[in-house]
Amino acid sequence: MGNRPNIVSPWKAAYDQFSPDDIVSAGTSFMAGNGYLGYRGTFPEWRAREYAACIVSDTYDMADGTWKELCSIPNALVTKTELNSREVSLHTGAISGYVLGIDTSAGITYGSYRWEQDGHSCGISFSRFAHLEQIHTIPQRIIITPDCSGELKLTTGIDGDVWSLHGDHFSSVTPRKYQQSLAAVCITAEKGLEITCSQHCRISGAVPNHISVIHDDRSLYREYTIPVNAGIPVVIEQVMSVHTIHDVSSPLEHSLQHGSDASAKGFDQLLLEQKTAWSREWQRFDITLEDEENSEDQLLFRFNSYHQRIATPSHTDHLPIGARGLSCQAYQGAAFWDQEIFNLPMYIHTDPDIARKLLTYRYKTLDGARKKAKRLGYSGAFYAWVSGDTGDELCPDYFFREVITGRPIRNHFNDWQIHISPDIAYAVLNYYRITGDWEFMTVHGAEMLCEISRFLFSRSSFRKDRNRYDILRVLGPDEYHENVDNNAFTNYQARYVLQGTLDILSQLEQQDPQMFRMLQQRLKLSSDEYIWWQEMTQLLYLPPPNESTGFIEQFQGYFALEDASPEELTQRLLDPQEYWGAPIGVAQDTQVIKQADVIQLFVLHTDLFSREVMEKCYRYYEPRTHHRSSLSPAVHAIAAARLGMKHEAFRYFRTAAAIDLYSTHAPVSGGTFIGGIHTAACGAIWQTAVFGFAGYRADDASLSFDPLIPEAWKTLSFRLAYRGQGFHARISNSFVTVTADKGNTRSLVFSSGESRYTLEPGKILTYTPR
Amino acid sequence: MGNRPNIVSPWKAAYDQFSPDDIVSAGTSFMAGNGYLGYRGTFPEWRAREYAACIVSDTYDMADGTWKELCSIPNALVTKTELNSREVSLHTGAISGYVLGIDTSAGITYGSYRWEQDGHSCGISFSRFAHLEQIHTIPQRIIITPDCSGELKLTTGIDGDVWSLHGDHFSSVTPRKYQQSLAAVCITAEKGLEITCSQHCRISGAVPNHISVIHDDRSLYREYTIPVNAGIPVVIEQVMSVHTIHDVSSPLEHSLQHGSDASAKGFDQLLLEQKTAWSREWQRFDITLEDEENSEDQLLFRFNSYHQRIATPSHTDHLPIGARGLSCQAYQGAAFWDQEIFNLPMYIHTDPDIARKLLTYRYKTLDGARKKAKRLGYSGAFYAWVSGDTGDELCPDYFFREVITGRPIRNHFNDWQIHISPDIAYAVLNYYRITGDWEFMTVHGAEMLCEISRFLFSRSSFRKDRNRYDILRVLGPDEYHENVDNNAFTNYQARYVLQGTLDILSQLEQQDPQMFRMLQQRLKLSSDEYIWWQEMTQLLYLPPPNESTGFIEQFQGYFALEDASPEELTQRLLDPQEYWGAPIGVAQDTQVIKQADVIQLFVLHTDLFSREVMEKCYRYYEPRTHHRSSLSPAVHAIAAARLGMKHEAFRYFRTAAAIDLYSTHAPVSGGTFIGGIHTAACGAIWQTAVFGFAGYRADDASLSFDPLIPEAWKTLSFRLAYRGQGFHARISNSFVTVTADKGNTRSLVFSSGESRYTLEPGKILTYTPR
Repeated sequence: MGNRPNIVSPWKAAYDQFSPDDIVSAGTSFMAGNGYLGYRGTFPEWRAREYAACIVSDTYDMADGTWKELCSIPNALVTKTELNSREVSLHTGAISGYVLGIDTSAGITYGSYRWEQDGHSCGISFSRFAHLEQIHTIPQRIIITPDCSGELKLTTGIDGDVWSLHGDHFSSVTPRKYQQSLAAVCITAEKGLEITCSQHCRISGAVPNHISVIHDDRSLYREYTIPVNAGIPVVIEQVMSVHTIHDVSSPLEHSLQHGSDASAKGFDQLLLEQKTAWSREWQRFDITLEDEENSEDQLLFRFNSYHQRIATPSHTDHLPIGARGLSCQAYQGAAFWDQEIFNLPMYIHTDPDIARKLLTYRYKTLDGARKKAKRLGYSGAFYAWVSGDTGDELCPDYFFREVITGRPIRNHFNDWQIHISPDIAYAVLNYYRITGDWEFMTVHGAEMLCEISRFLFSRSSFRKDRNRYDILRVLGPDEYHENVDNNAFTNYQARYVLQGTLDILSQLEQQDPQMFRMLQQRLKLSSDEYIWWQEMTQLLYLPPPNESTGFIEQFQGYFALEDASPEELTQRLLDPQEYWGAPIGVAQDTQVIKQADVIQLFVLHTDLFSREVMEKCYRYYEPRTHHRSSLSPAVHAIAAARLGMKHEAFRYFRTAAAIDLYSTHAPVSGGTFIGGIHTAACGAIWQTAVFGFAGYRADDASLSFDPLIPEAWKTLSFRLAYRGQGFHARISNSFVTVTADKGNTRSLVFSSGESRYTLEPGKILTYTPR
Repeated sequence: MGNRPNIVSPWKAAYDQFSPDDIVSAGTSFMAGNGYLGYRGTFPEWRAREYAACIVSDTYDMADGTWKELCSIPNALVTKTELNSREVSLHTGAISGYVLGIDTSAGITYGSYRWEQDGHSCGISFSRFAHLEQIHTIPQRIIITPDCSGELKLTTGIDGDVWSLHGDHFSSVTPRKYQQSLAAVCITAEKGLEITCSQHCRISGAVPNHISVIHDDRSLYREYTIPVNAGIPVVIEQVMSVHTIHDVSSPLEHSLQHGSDASAKGFDQLLLEQKTAWSREWQRFDITLEDEENSEDQLLFRFNSYHQRIATPSHTDHLPIGARGLSCQAYQGAAFWDQEIFNLPMYIHTDPDIARKLLTYRYKTLDGARKKAKRLGYSGAFYAWVSGDTGDELCPDYFFREVITGRPIRNHFNDWQIHISPDIAYAVLNYYRITGDWEFMTVHGAEMLCEISRFLFSRSSFRKDRNRYDILRVLGPDEYHENVDNNAFTNYQARYVLQGTLDILSQLEQQDPQMFRMLQQRLKLSSDEYIWWQEMTQLLYLPPPNESTGFIEQFQGYFALEDASPEELTQRLLDPQEYWGAPIGVAQDTQVIKQADVIQLFVLHTDLFSREVMEKCYRYYEPRTHHRSSLSPAVHAIAAARLGMKHEAFRYFRTAAAIDLYSTHAPVSGGTFIGGIHTAACGAIWQTAVFGFAGYRADDASLSFDPLIPEAWKTLSFRLAYRGQGFHARISNSFVTVTADKGNTRSLVFSSGESRYTLEPGKILTYTPR
């Protein structure tokens, strides 16, 4: 558990004390990013030791033979300051007025402190952001205000000593010096990919009287010697510019030109652009509380949506959202089921274009999924558990270590956690349901659905003597229990997807018979397959609620396991870093779960179960849940809100929303670094507001809200889009006000109990929720 | 690795030096037994500390909540000797002439030594056997010959302090004193079962001048003070008599009467009976080498057959052969697949009555197998992996410990090692094929076959998109690899059994339609089931020999595992006691196997594969085999002999035959005591001679030999029976001589290449094997 930063405003959070213990979490929480790159929230003088890093998307590379991950590139914003031959740093003098924080309104990392040593002192502050539109650009401004006259020495340039999780990703790093800039050309070890970064630096407020160059193998700096006067600030404006060979044919040229142009524009102008860009984003994504006095919850909503947004590669349709975004290399910069189930809903409901890009990424990686299925002896598409640019499985066979013996553990995330495929299909179906984007469905979606259904069928086992289909040997979302049968989450998802596929195919056959035939031919779909899928929707075993207890069993045999609590199991640990799950962790033979599959199931398929069953299951599983997955608390907040458990829902919202800002999750498990931003949890916070507290549902017939707004919030406001029609919603427990966009082309229908309300384009409607 | 005893004669082996390291293995190797009880090969003065123990069959009891095992009962033969107030023991004086051994000709444990302390000395010797016909009786004779006059003090009686592996099995042990005897009435902890033992003691050669009684809570002794003269031996004849409430309604009365009668008969008369009885046994089971000078191999054959015989409860048809016989409590006194595949063949071919009893035991435990199948969600009969009196599964979920962390390991021997059921069916089919006992088949066998086929069908998975049946998530005999799919051994066995079941049912329908209908009705066999079984024989996936390499893959994915050698893996151990197998042992993710499933398959199904395939597989798997199972070397000996690898076969025969006598297997693995006699290995030695070196095959059309006799042996001789016709065979590499029993009622046909020879009752035939 880290220290807690302060809530500075409804948009800002910052530490006001320096502690070495907070370096990792501050670097993550206060990072700047734009979906193309991420730059950690560190002071300009910090280096690899302080986990300073810039992670660049689309640079998957394997350096150690096991872990393919994004590259952490040389840091072209590093800046060392000396005042009168004394190093200005947090370790070399008396420090006061320390601040390190984030301004989520425009994605600005900022920090400052006053330094004093032997009567020499100065103030130092910086701001930095990753430009949301000029995605290759990171502007940084440092202001140093000496309290005494004398000589300032600034050493700034490119630090080739990078913090990299799994090996040195560069076969070469070649620093280059130019008149106005410095650059480093990096060639990746595995693929020989070129990545170039450059630094463009302008100093104002004082004039250097000497500039020299310092370099070593991989690093290159300019050292500016600057006479200064007390009270006169020296302003250093820098631009880091990053390009890869995937972006442009000559990364070095582009980097130099791009950086030079941005530098010429100046920090203030760039900042203005950034604020304008972010202001547009917030119009779509912001969850607004009535009472802005409630800064903490308001900031938590924004903090999480900010991080979800900067993790999203919205500039392209061939890259995923990494499970740790671009905050570090953990989880390999790759997508998990998180992307579809946790990140995607906000985009589906607010910015379908981004959602479509992310699903198109899945379409483009369909061949990787086909290869994986085939390799494991199945048909169709079994998506990678850990998916990078190609869709090939990136998840290593050995993920954690048994920390006592040091032996690697063979976890079966990559071959048995099959729900990834139906989760993606669920997202395709949901995307279509909400956006009505039939063109995407015909061009991409239907093919994905067919291949996923095909996989699900081939992955099932038919028992003739029981006349039923089983799905054997899986992991559900609860990864503590490997190798389980008829996992409730997986089986219900599979059934939903098979039915959805059949429905879409039937619609396609009617509406676009030519497209249907082309699809049939391309996929070599046989008529047997329709019959099989149909049969499987009817005969797939779906763990039912127990008739007397109402409990749905997470998987076959779960209730026969030892009944224990997470607290009891903690006592059994021999080492706090032990991995709790299979094959020999303390939880695997007990009912203690990492996250609750059945609760997750309810959030996706509320209609299938009675409220009584859901409530009974919630009360059974909740105390047995370790919430060791950052995905878990938000799901509990949504489910609790839907079940009318106001305090429980709020408590879980707070837990979920604070995971990163208050750094509540350990960054290492089973010897593996799993730190960085919990992107899925961030995405889920938006869902807690809209699906949980506001109780929003979009059915084919109408839209509805079923609010359970915490008292402290009074109202929740946000924007939504449904089948091309945008509207703003302001929700309290006693009223719902919806305002349709002027540009809407159709009316929207809202329902409340038996009542129906029609909202015409540009109109406002207020009604009482039932 | 223990020390090696000497080969005293072709019938006898003995240690001639005392070493504390040999106490465990001598106790096992030199034990006396008769299938009802086992008494370890210990000196009369040894106690629990020296693993003295008497294990009684049919006394399954659970004392610790985990391990149901046979009881180790109070030792009613313990005898302490003092000469002139000095204790005579191996630890209290100078020892010479030490001997501790076994005479396999009549199952006699014997031992002696000379003891000397401060000029006082004596010789002490003992003999002991478990009466083969009066199975409740263990006679023991001790002879003490003092070299000096003075006073001998003998303390003999019942030692209630027993060596028990898993807890105290007695809620009470009540010692009782009688005029001529002592007794102890024991009540077992779990079931309240009564077990009584008594001691009856007669002393000759000197007359005690004082007798007193010593007792504590659970023990009771008489102390005899006896004046002795130099050179005049004192002879103590004792009888231990054991009964349980499963044998008689009043164990105490029976024990006293029985012991008193035996004691009255005298040791010499009892010994004569014993020799006569064993002489009859050896006529059936002995493997005789031409050259009796070759004592070691000759003794090894006899040592192993002796132990196989004394482990067999031939007095009843409701008990199994324990995997460690009655040598100790390890493996719970329970049957594994060992019984059918390793122990049964000798009886099928030499003494079908015993074989029938053992299979009847499996019939009587069919309900346990049905319950197990049902509990795990299957139909039919899934036999217990560890089977005691009821057929309920005795195998605990946790068998070994991960020795470094001390955590228990969940091994899936009990729920995934399904080949036990087809192995039993294989034995039923084989028993019928060799004995022609159609009555057994109709009354018991057919029902077992149906229930096992039913189980196999319900345990399989049908893949419609591949039109094939798979058997998923099993362990083959190679237990290092859990949770494997389409294990070659299991799948070929399953197919054989399904076909065999269909054949038997078809025969039954034709020959005994009424019996057939009764079976159908009793088992509620549906016509669907025949069709399913038929279909499964055709569509079950059978791993084929690879077209280019000829290798049959042990299970799906085996060849993709790390290729390593047992020697390399030994280097990776952190602790020599580590368990090598799943879930985290050093072998589980490598191609190193505990024993070779594919080689085992060849031994059972030689006809299915070309010699070339078998040879290629042998050469592939052999160097990757750890032989950590005592079942492994004998199987390699048989396979190597069949493949004409004379030296390889002989080397593996020697390894296999010496496992117990030379104590080559560690008695502890993963923290669990697994010592005691390796009964299956013992049974397999008979098979190495008959099926391996002699190459005996019994087909429906004829019998044949394909000899590969090691040079040192010149010939192998043994008796066989085929469909009620007995004959003696003497086999060399250049001739086969078969002698038919006079009492035979039909001729036997032998074949050699294209030639056929008919052997009439009472006649001798010699021919040249091809």
